[in-house]
Amino acid sequence: MLSLAVTLAILAVSCSGQSVQVDGNKVVDTLTRLANFSDHENPAVTRILFSPNDMLARTFVKDLMRDANLIVREDKMGNIFGRWEGSNPSAGVVLTGSHCDAIPLAGMYDGTLGVIGGIEAIAALQRAGYKPAASIEVLMFTSEEPTRFGLSCSGSRALAGALEAEVLESKLDSEGRHFVQVANEVGYGASSTQEMLDATKLAPGQVAHFVELHIEQGPFLEAEGKDIGVVTAIAAPAALEVVFVGDGGHAGGQLMPARNDAGLAGAELALAVERHVLATGSVDTVGTTGTFEISPGAINSVPREARLAIDIRDIDGPRRDSVVAAVLESAREIAERRKVRMSSRVINQDPPASSHDDIVSAAASSAQQLGLSVKHMVSRAYHDSLFMARVAPMGMIFIPCKNGWSHRPDEFAKPEDIANGVSVLALTMARLSGGSWPKTEL
Amino acid sequence: MLSLAVTLAILAVSCSGQSVQVDGNKVVDTLTRLANFSDHENPAVTRILFSPNDMLARTFVKDLMRDANLIVREDKMGNIFGRWEGSNPSAGVVLTGSHCDAIPLAGMYDGTLGVIGGIEAIAALQRAGYKPAASIEVLMFTSEEPTRFGLSCSGSRALAGALEAEVLESKLDSEGRHFVQVANEVGYGASSTQEMLDATKLAPGQVAHFVELHIEQGPFLEAEGKDIGVVTAIAAPAALEVVFVGDGGHAGGQLMPARNDAGLAGAELALAVERHVLATGSVDTVGTTGTFEISPGAINSVPREARLAIDIRDIDGPRRDSVVAAVLESAREIAERRKVRMSSRVINQDPPASSHDDIVSAAASSAQQLGLSVKHMVSRAYHDSLFMARVAPMGMIFIPCKNGWSHRPDEFAKPEDIANGVSVLALTMARLSGGSWPKTEL
Ligand SMILES: [Mn+2]
Ligand SMILES: [Mn+2]
Ligand SMILES: [Mn+2]
Ligand SMILES: [Mn+2]
Repeated sequence: MLSLAVTLAILAVSCSGQSVQVDGNKVVDTLTRLANFSDHENPAVTRILFSPNDMLARTFVKDLMRDANLIVREDKMGNIFGRWEGSNPSAGVVLTGSHCDAIPLAGMYDGTLGVIGGIEAIAALQRAGYKPAASIEVLMFTSEEPTRFGLSCSGSRALAGALEAEVLESKLDSEGRHFVQVANEVGYGASSTQEMLDATKLAPGQVAHFVELHIEQGPFLEAEGKDIGVVTAIAAPAALEVVFVGDGGHAGGQLMPARNDAGLAGAELALAVERHVLATGSVDTVGTTGTFEISPGAINSVPREARLAIDIRDIDGPRRDSVVAAVLESAREIAERRKVRMSSRVINQDPPASSHDDIVSAAASSAQQLGLSVKHMVSRAYHDSLFMARVAPMGMIFIPCKNGWSHRPDEFAKPEDIANGVSVLALTMARLSGGSWPKTEL
Repeated sequence: MLSLAVTLAILAVSCSGQSVQVDGNKVVDTLTRLANFSDHENPAVTRILFSPNDMLARTFVKDLMRDANLIVREDKMGNIFGRWEGSNPSAGVVLTGSHCDAIPLAGMYDGTLGVIGGIEAIAALQRAGYKPAASIEVLMFTSEEPTRFGLSCSGSRALAGALEAEVLESKLDSEGRHFVQVANEVGYGASSTQEMLDATKLAPGQVAHFVELHIEQGPFLEAEGKDIGVVTAIAAPAALEVVFVGDGGHAGGQLMPARNDAGLAGAELALAVERHVLATGSVDTVGTTGTFEISPGAINSVPREARLAIDIRDIDGPRRDSVVAAVLESAREIAERRKVRMSSRVINQDPPASSHDDIVSAAASSAQQLGLSVKHMVSRAYHDSLFMARVAPMGMIFIPCKNGWSHRPDEFAKPEDIANGVSVLALTMARLSGGSWPKTEL
């Protein structure tokens, strides 16, 4: 009789007591300390791959992982893993993570939430007495942002085996150096790009589930009053580089009819990007000319060269491709009319990715268990999850952020939303790991 | 009887023998050596005020002045003078000169011709046995180009007393430092900007004539087959800075209707500058958006700020002013329509300057004496002469340059045109100095 009574009590607990305690303010404190490692003064955050501030941030993250009793390992690309060994260490891992690099003058939540929040989710599970079956790991990806080498998601592309050595070797930083050179200087890297990439690639089945916690970077959760976004798909990103080259000349001496001003060609193209995007008539199509560099860049010199980097995304792959084609056609037309030389290059044009039903269900159920409202939604920003989806079932958990702002110093998420997101992540990972909750009395 | 015969011989010589020998190839050799002091590899020349290469160029120029037996002096702004003392040292000086700084990726003739050619013109007069009455000086101006502090003609503005301490102090280089600080570090400067400017200003009457030799930086001499341009006026330059500020955001997450993209505002304004300039219907109006900087300048970030520097010139001051006004009005209209904040600043808006008849006549007569064809013309590029005109009678001598190209690495002037220009400068200075030619026999 006693035995049966105890069993019933345990079952009851296993349904109602599988929960975690997360202090959102504590997570914000940690994010605030991490934000100090920045090339610009806070609230702006600028943290460029393998810069001194990036290296300080990496040490900070590894220390936090060790404080949470995680086993730290790093791969040759600089991806940093913290492992909580489960009772079934040979099972595929439940992996969470995001990035800590930040584009110039960004904010303190993009990416960092998924790293610091991932560590805190594991710590919360530990505090709750949860015992994982499949091991749980948290990961800080190398260089999600394309700032230094013009390539986004370097770490996750490499983990997914989706990065060719030739492609990575074609990318140089502003000092003309290769990724592997710079990696070697800070203690990562290998004797060649190929060796580095080979060593980084995940083994088949190594990751059983990947789930990333991130701020929405869009306005919908806030506008609709939803607590948690469960991502069903990630929009298809494309990036183009277009270079116009004219003959330059003196701004006083060269008369207007004799000019072929590369800067004006660039200005026309930036406006054409906007026009082609708006022409789809869909709010889901976005296009941005985010870099526009002219040279020589002197007030008294006609621009000889304009170099534009253009980002085009859509939740609809073929519609996105039609905008890419229209932009390239405009570039050709402008170059011909303005008599400048033009070259263009597709930096990347990736397909969209779908979340795995198991992770969507686990995340939605975990949110509902906590009494939080859920919106199933598409991510228009892209993430390391886009590439992790190629080697593992993938899912993402979003929390609201103020006005949908991101990539700016006033990027903001409320501590209570952060606590919600970390709690949902923790419970989602627990469901996916298939471990056990403590047997407590009623 | 003997006395009269000798006098007639001397007169004959003084009409037909007042000439000089100039080797154009030797001048090109010297210019080529000077071009080595460059932050970019030749043929590109980049020489920024008070940079290591600028300091090396200054030493090179002072050595050349000393080789020509000139007395070298420097003022607190870093203007470098080489003096050939005349028989009437208290008379106002005949001054020639130009600049040796070069904007990024410029060529090897702009400015340098007037310094190296000025030294060579004096050396040629010395070789010919000419004895100056008024002293003749050659000058290398500090910072004709605006590259470092965003202010053109710093040296000549200061010499003319046309530079307010407040204005110069408002200009910072890219490292946030003041002119006087940097000047002090390389051995110029003073304890304050005001003291530096006060010490630099020329005394009234100190310069009796200023004449500058320069490449045309325009296509007319070459196109019309003229050997020498005699400048009658310098076009009125204006420079504006316009800054647009929006809210930035993530290039994926921020949908198009929510954007206020500062980069697109800038692109529209650059095109508006071109439109307003063409609308005058006059080939003499030119306008250039020579710098266009957007930030944060990341491919996945909506531009938050665009900073444009706009150069507008015309030989007609009021017409130039009407274009400036139209550009500023467009900036306001674009800012309102695109919901970005806008600020604008007139960096300079100088009146045109006229050459002095005495110098125009001396230069034209000297060219005719050498059998060279002459075009009287307006300078559309501006020069230190524009400011020297405020304290002395001014004139300029132009030589053709290939295709009118300037401010680019393939800027080029033929050695024979260089020899013509230096010879005309030498004879012009001799006429203005009022000295004596050697008495040679028939
Ligand atoms: Mn980001
Ligand atoms: Mn991110
Ligand atoms: Mn110049
Ligand atoms: Mn010049």
